[in-house]
Amino acid sequence: MSHLLVIGSVAFDTVETPYGKREFVLGGSANFFSMSSSFFAPVRMVAVVGEDFPQEHLERLAQRGVDLEGLQRTTGKTFHWTGVYYGEDMNQAHTLDTQLNVFEHFTPQLPESYRETKTVLLANIDPELQLKVLEQIKSPRLVACDTMNFWISGKRMALMKVLEHVDLFLLNEKELKDLSGQRSLLSGVHWLRERGPQIIVVKRGEYGAMLFYRDMIFSAPAFPLEDVRDPTGAGDTFAGGLLGYLADVEEINELHLRRAMIAGSVMASFVVEQFSCDRLISLTPDEIQQRFLAFQKLVHFDASHELPLR
Amino acid sequence: MSHLLVIGSVAFDTVETPYGKREFVLGGSANFFSMSSSFFAPVRMVAVVGEDFPQEHLERLAQRGVDLEGLQRTTGKTFHWTGVYYGEDMNQAHTLDTQLNVFEHFTPQLPESYRETKTVLLANIDPELQLKVLEQIKSPRLVACDTMNFWISGKRMALMKVLEHVDLFLLNEKELKDLSGQRSLLSGVHWLRERGPQIIVVKRGEYGAMLFYRDMIFSAPAFPLEDVRDPTGAGDTFAGGLLGYLADVEEINELHLRRAMIAGSVMASFVVEQFSCDRLISLTPDEIQQRFLAFQKLVHFDASHELPLR
Repeated sequence: MSHLLVIGSVAFDTVETPYGKREFVLGGSANFFSMSSSFFAPVRMVAVVGEDFPQEHLERLAQRGVDLEGLQRTTGKTFHWTGVYYGEDMNQAHTLDTQLNVFEHFTPQLPESYRETKTVLLANIDPELQLKVLEQIKSPRLVACDTMNFWISGKRMALMKVLEHVDLFLLNEKELKDLSGQRSLLSGVHWLRERGPQIIVVKRGEYGAMLFYRDMIFSAPAFPLEDVRDPTGAGDTFAGGLLGYLADVEEINELHLRRAMIAGSVMASFVVEQFSCDRLISLTPDEIQQRFLAFQKLVHFDASHELPLR
Repeated sequence: MSHLLVIGSVAFDTVETPYGKREFVLGGSANFFSMSSSFFAPVRMVAVVGEDFPQEHLERLAQRGVDLEGLQRTTGKTFHWTGVYYGEDMNQAHTLDTQLNVFEHFTPQLPESYRETKTVLLANIDPELQLKVLEQIKSPRLVACDTMNFWISGKRMALMKVLEHVDLFLLNEKELKDLSGQRSLLSGVHWLRERGPQIIVVKRGEYGAMLFYRDMIFSAPAFPLEDVRDPTGAGDTFAGGLLGYLADVEEINELHLRRAMIAGSVMASFVVEQFSCDRLISLTPDEIQQRFLAFQKLVHFDASHELPLR
């Protein structure tokens, strides 16, 4: 059983969507990622929380096989994000407030036991911190990286430096356009692959996600849901399924990348059903397997014989 | 070999996209639909053109097996649409000018030979004209209908009356929201199915299309293209492949609806590669079959065994 390492945020979120408002609920990229990937592989978490963070949640993570040796607890308050999603576009979070708190002076320090982890996610944090983590890892097999527009515009050079060491890069369509300056998705992907990452995953919110690797393009739909209550953490939860699946495969190849994309899509389809990570807490392996099959029904068509053309 | 009937527009389009501008090129819903569906089944066209319409193009349609007995040619000018697509959102046409011309006083009159057609597309025209056509058809097996926001807001009652007689309704996401007033795609689809059509196809532009039938949901991706030069007619071309495929199947069932959705997606993926219907003119059956297989590679994943969960 191979481990996964994630460096990212553990946070309190205050979120409002057309379905209601929740204050100081559990959030953060490393939190969503760990909750999700722990269904697939044991996770090592590198993050920081303040004195106000509930012990109960740490125990829940530990029960799920999340190693918390790399989680720093310092004096001060936990990172707090406040955002809102409007009904017309649930794909887009609007940030109302960001209180970095303990995250402001965070310097990731990897425990010795973490340094040989083979699969790594550099979740959405300052690319300079992402680099610091990379330097401490001995010989990873798969380095994945997520980011956001804030770093693309504010720390572009550092981000480009990170990308040189990244195998799998996750970003959304707008981030791809902003970073590459290219008009089409495909041109943007070509641009990125000349700069480091050979596997590109483009996240498209309610339209699913696409993966580009060598000459393969794979398109994963989003699962159609009656109610998307809270999209917060969907991308990190997706990454959790994707990398959790890949952590333990013998070889990173087309077959596994396709299945991993669906694993990620399955996990993301659950987390948005409820606020915060509530749905990940109640989720069972059996529900995951059933939705995996439901994805197959969603996209399968009979291509065993040609179209009947005149 | 079963026939298809289409009632819609044949037009001149003046179109500008980031790839250039074309003036007075061939367009119109019935034109795109016929060019596309003629690869699958013989088509009967009901439309109107003016004296200025090129005979050459009518001959090309006839060569493709399009029956033009129902095409009226009257004094005056052909319908002329002028629109522009901006680079940021190629999914959305912005209409600059509409000259109805001969279309203004168009009253569809079906030739006797058309009245027993089994598969019908009521393309995007005034729902009152759609009703007039329906009245003249004896016992269709599959009635499909397309529309646009102009009719949803302007002739809502007539449109709802049409829908009572429609089996398959094609519309885009925004139209679904505007018509149903429902927040989510699924709620909108439920709303529609209580009002007539049992098969709903939701078009999502560069994100593909979804089909809802009984308890089946099918998601078809759009084909990733380096350059989308002109999206005009993509929806009608999609409908052409979808209904062309369905015109000749023994039974309208899940298996065929899935394949038909891909047939439509294949045809739409070609037409946007060039301006107007240029790409449909140069298209070969072999290219269609190859792209059908490429769609399979785009979405296929191995679901023969479960996800490796802990």
